[in-house]
Amino acid sequence: MAIAKDIRIDLPPEGVPKKWYNLVADIGHMEPPLNPGTMKPASPEDFEAIFCKEIIRQEGSTERHINIPEEVRDNLIHLNRPAPLQRAVRLEKYLKTPAKIYFKREDMSPLGSHKGNTALAQAYFNAESGIHTLTTETGAGQWGTALAMVSNLFDIDCTVFMVRGSYEQKPMRKTLMQTYGATVHASPSAQTEFGKKVLKEHPDTTGSLGIAISEACEMAAKDPNICYSLGSVLNHVMLHQSVIGIETIEQMKIGEIDPDCMIACAGGGSNFGGFAFPLLGEKIKGKTDCEFMAVESKAAPSLTVGEFKYDFGDTAGFTPLLMMYTLGQEFIPKGIHAGGLRYHGMAPLVSAAMNKGLITARAYEQLETFEAGVMFARTEGMVPAPESCHAVKAAIDVALECKKTGEAKNIVFCMSGHGMLDLYGYEQYLNGTMRDSSV
Amino acid sequence: MAIAKDIRIDLPPEGVPKKWYNLVADIGHMEPPLNPGTMKPASPEDFEAIFCKEIIRQEGSTERHINIPEEVRDNLIHLNRPAPLQRAVRLEKYLKTPAKIYFKREDMSPLGSHKGNTALAQAYFNAESGIHTLTTETGAGQWGTALAMVSNLFDIDCTVFMVRGSYEQKPMRKTLMQTYGATVHASPSAQTEFGKKVLKEHPDTTGSLGIAISEACEMAAKDPNICYSLGSVLNHVMLHQSVIGIETIEQMKIGEIDPDCMIACAGGGSNFGGFAFPLLGEKIKGKTDCEFMAVESKAAPSLTVGEFKYDFGDTAGFTPLLMMYTLGQEFIPKGIHAGGLRYHGMAPLVSAAMNKGLITARAYEQLETFEAGVMFARTEGMVPAPESCHAVKAAIDVALECKKTGEAKNIVFCMSGHGMLDLYGYEQYLNGTMRDSSV
Repeated sequence: MAIAKDIRIDLPPEGVPKKWYNLVADIGHMEPPLNPGTMKPASPEDFEAIFCKEIIRQEGSTERHINIPEEVRDNLIHLNRPAPLQRAVRLEKYLKTPAKIYFKREDMSPLGSHKGNTALAQAYFNAESGIHTLTTETGAGQWGTALAMVSNLFDIDCTVFMVRGSYEQKPMRKTLMQTYGATVHASPSAQTEFGKKVLKEHPDTTGSLGIAISEACEMAAKDPNICYSLGSVLNHVMLHQSVIGIETIEQMKIGEIDPDCMIACAGGGSNFGGFAFPLLGEKIKGKTDCEFMAVESKAAPSLTVGEFKYDFGDTAGFTPLLMMYTLGQEFIPKGIHAGGLRYHGMAPLVSAAMNKGLITARAYEQLETFEAGVMFARTEGMVPAPESCHAVKAAIDVALECKKTGEAKNIVFCMSGHGMLDLYGYEQYLNGTMRDSSV
Repeated sequence: MAIAKDIRIDLPPEGVPKKWYNLVADIGHMEPPLNPGTMKPASPEDFEAIFCKEIIRQEGSTERHINIPEEVRDNLIHLNRPAPLQRAVRLEKYLKTPAKIYFKREDMSPLGSHKGNTALAQAYFNAESGIHTLTTETGAGQWGTALAMVSNLFDIDCTVFMVRGSYEQKPMRKTLMQTYGATVHASPSAQTEFGKKVLKEHPDTTGSLGIAISEACEMAAKDPNICYSLGSVLNHVMLHQSVIGIETIEQMKIGEIDPDCMIACAGGGSNFGGFAFPLLGEKIKGKTDCEFMAVESKAAPSLTVGEFKYDFGDTAGFTPLLMMYTLGQEFIPKGIHAGGLRYHGMAPLVSAAMNKGLITARAYEQLETFEAGVMFARTEGMVPAPESCHAVKAAIDVALECKKTGEAKNIVFCMSGHGMLDLYGYEQYLNGTMRDSSV
């Protein structure tokens, strides 16, 4: 009994949270999004062209807890929630560290990552609003995959604009989205005015996330029955992802784990926010002194190198201005396998937490994160997504710091996704052709 | 509570079985393996060149229950056992069937399939025997992946001979095995005398499972510290896989599910045997009248078209003669994506059960199984491995038969693995270039 409990702490299906947690209620003052035309706080109407009303309500909500509709909960259970909290006993042994290392298994979703948590909620509320089609962009493909599958569950069509470079380099990601029933266009595409304009000017472009966002928004703005869906950055996405952290708190109670350091990778911020915010709320109330560490790529180090200022969420300047750590709207990160970490900014809520000194951040090079991923695969059996390798690397480093100091810290990190569709990156690492790509 | 319980029945980590179940104890008379030289029953010594003693003991055991060593149990937990039993509520709704459809989630193993259950046990017993290297062959790659990872857990080196055609067509499978620390050779290789001979005679060959088995056996036979590991067919593999069925029985008790039809795909037979045998033992004792259905490919229909006779387990005629349903040792199945179902024979225990009228069998074409796989992905969220698509297709067909008759059968099938590394097959299905390949 004792051994089994120490390897993995499960929650029963009924353990899926009944309410989301909203850090906005506890974090104190935040600078609001601004309408770039008037430079005044954005109104709900500023979002109505592309989002449905309930999503806009959640985006602006200051309530601490918001009920999760029963149909969303059932679907979360269906897609493998609650996710286990597992102990990396073999990795600890390999590192000879006095620290204990735990990891939250978001990789066990059949969608491959944590992205389904918000995709499900967004598809549900859009379906309830009578929306018949959702549009979105995808780079690495995790987000597009999640939205493709869940749209189908609620009888919504899903159109994904996939950055042309990824579309060509990752054809299996495209196939996965199509298997789930989505329509996938390489972006820039001939489906939108903006796409056609870009194609005319740059017929050979491999595209960018900024262009893909613009195409998805244009398609949504043209038809009141079509909405746009975003996989990170905004408050409502952080809210939906809070199921990760709420479950983790419950599991740590069962396992009598008092966490010293909670670690997650951060690109747009939804994985880190979902994992950290519920316990961060407790920290604000003085109930824990746990460290919360966001781990980013040196190829896009918004928290560790960027400035805290108002900036656009997209490259084209389509969105309201958001107060966040940013490298600038025109910053184009170098190519790395962790496509989910290639974002110029950081979620306003994560940025506010950083600015208030509530969280810490580290940035790593690509090679050292893959080295950590391979070590993890060989000791623990799971191949982490390139993004998750950043959290693995940080957890290993903290554990090795404990080895020096003799501290028996409890380190808990989020395994945000698996690497089954990112094995080309592992191939490059193993055959020695991988390069670092720092700023 | 009621809804959640109806979606998924979990067992706690302690629910991993403590004993394996051995159908040999209950099935009655079976024809023994024969030494092809003497045509007399094979003795344990006939296996000693390539297997360790404990594996040979289990291969010949007639005990009903064999204890699972604690270290193997801990590792089963670590690799996500017990596996959930889930209800396919959305698929039922889509089919408008009165039947209930349940599926066992072997796809949730980080190794991608059920193959880890026996890989773990084999690596453990070989490590206990002082073996420093395991060799094996792999075609589709599921088995090689499982053995690669678990060898690492017990500090054993692992050498995989991968059929050259797969090695070249599925480079990511090779990368996954290398990520787990295995040495992978394209077979035929220059590593063995047999490989060199084949290469000299047929320099452009894409290889075959038979050649790869011969190379793995040759390497094991040459060194007493090297053993060979087999992923299916033999009794000890069926034994180790019985954890699937033992857990499923426990979960059906919890869910008050009285199964009418238990379905699994069958290539060599380990997935079907592991899933069905524990309850089949109850059927032999008259405690259930459940139907047990093995589902094979029309490209290799050993149970539905083959003869019940003595035949070699491999193409080259290296192994003892096994009494089984077979298409002949030289039968080469046409190319299908379900590489795990491309085997000329069927496990002697599965064959005996078939010959005694204890189980039924169906065979399907490739296209109709992928059609079922896509339907499952769109309704339930998981992309099945091409092998598992055969079980999905049979479950759908039984459910549609129920729709005609009005019977509310309980259908339980085994989702033996996921299709994340088989998306090229889905791509071919979706773009219309897939062809059937019946005998």
